[in-house]
Amino acid sequence: MKLTYIGVENIPMVVPGDDVLALIEKGLASMGESLQDDDVIVIAQKIISKAEDRYVDLVNVTPGEEALRLGEEIDKDPRKVQLILDESKEIVRKRIGALIVEHRLGFVHASAGIDQSNITNENGDDEDLCLLLPVDPDASARQIVEGVKQKHGLQVGVVINDSLGRAWRMGQVGHAIGVAGFTALEDYIGSYDIYGHEMQVSQVAAADEIAAGASLLMGPTDQMTPVVLIRGYRPRDPDDIELKGVQPLIRPKDMDMFR
Amino acid sequence: MKLTYIGVENIPMVVPGDDVLALIEKGLASMGESLQDDDVIVIAQKIISKAEDRYVDLVNVTPGEEALRLGEEIDKDPRKVQLILDESKEIVRKRIGALIVEHRLGFVHASAGIDQSNITNENGDDEDLCLLLPVDPDASARQIVEGVKQKHGLQVGVVINDSLGRAWRMGQVGHAIGVAGFTALEDYIGSYDIYGHEMQVSQVAAADEIAAGASLLMGPTDQMTPVVLIRGYRPRDPDDIELKGVQPLIRPKDMDMFR
Repeated sequence: MKLTYIGVENIPMVVPGDDVLALIEKGLASMGESLQDDDVIVIAQKIISKAEDRYVDLVNVTPGEEALRLGEEIDKDPRKVQLILDESKEIVRKRIGALIVEHRLGFVHASAGIDQSNITNENGDDEDLCLLLPVDPDASARQIVEGVKQKHGLQVGVVINDSLGRAWRMGQVGHAIGVAGFTALEDYIGSYDIYGHEMQVSQVAAADEIAAGASLLMGPTDQMTPVVLIRGYRPRDPDDIELKGVQPLIRPKDMDMFR
Repeated sequence: MKLTYIGVENIPMVVPGDDVLALIEKGLASMGESLQDDDVIVIAQKIISKAEDRYVDLVNVTPGEEALRLGEEIDKDPRKVQLILDESKEIVRKRIGALIVEHRLGFVHASAGIDQSNITNENGDDEDLCLLLPVDPDASARQIVEGVKQKHGLQVGVVINDSLGRAWRMGQVGHAIGVAGFTALEDYIGSYDIYGHEMQVSQVAAADEIAAGASLLMGPTDQMTPVVLIRGYRPRDPDDIELKGVQPLIRPKDMDMFR
């Protein structure tokens, strides 16, 4: 069994309104490649956010009382703190310079996934420019899956990928923040091992494993390429691909010993 | 840029004393493949532990006072609790049925990484059989790297892989617990992005991304194959491969907000 990860070349700088699927297909064509049935396309969150114009300029953000107080406490620009709070349900941890929150989508992310690197505006006047996560990354992923089906009659999977920090371990790793077209979490609960014992590994976060593997080809903040194609992946339960998206990967708060 | 993950076929059940490198080479040969320079070999922890005879039978474990008390508190076999404590530095979290510890090697693992699935003994009398992590997974990885160098003059990387649970997210994902031959943590601190801003993603846990991507081909608890070859990976800082192993991936306790 073989999996091939193909870094898609010649993806241009993405600007608001761009058709990301069209850019991916152009990139593939420039390599003599095209989409095939059962390909999984991993797309860096950043280009989806850019295409969806999720820019916010901090000059337009007025920090409220909580953001001002918190900004002073953790030594962080209160306008950025306000933006993080606006994108979040609650603060999970804080320390000087760092704010770990539960994003409104349920993810536990540093700074609510808001980016300030590898982005700029037309004037290069970008000190205060921020890029938020897509409004609904599952919907963004679904749109690509449906676009491919309509244009080519092919069934593909899509993962929107973000590099995230983790508890207990150093370094960032690619994680899925949006999923469509396949099962993000493979469930083996009630399965038995080769000797007839109940399985101890009962759920595999397949979409996160795909995102992590693809991140290797993206480099830090998608410097190398923002799109990676995975060929040869056979998802478990291929019929069970209704619109569950990334939600099965989010651990409910009451099942989390680290919240 | 392209990465190929090859599931190595025909790896037999591993027994204590087995030469894992020889088994991998036989499996590759059965596919008409052989090792190449710069391949990264990802090996499931379980077969390394089996080859190193890291079995413990709970009938030989006598729980002490703490294990008896804790076993009752979290409703877990006190002999298993004793074994977990023996493998650990400290308890990080506990709840009914679950013990999350800092393993003596520094990892935060459920049950100290002790396995009870997909293992058996000669008699099939295996209810109480446990398998510990390798004594020194970095050394196990180094031994394979050095073996390949001696036999073939090739430079490969090796990752010992374990499927681990995570804070905040559901499902298990492959992680590196032993690394040799390449840089586990790629450091971009002080690097600048394409617009000249300092990078926000500053360290990439490359060995974890490799382990996660390879896990997809291993299935839950290495049911599909316990060995995956990655071809096409070009590590950053290929000269900086001195014996740091997996240690750079372990977050120091005082830098961890989730301990």
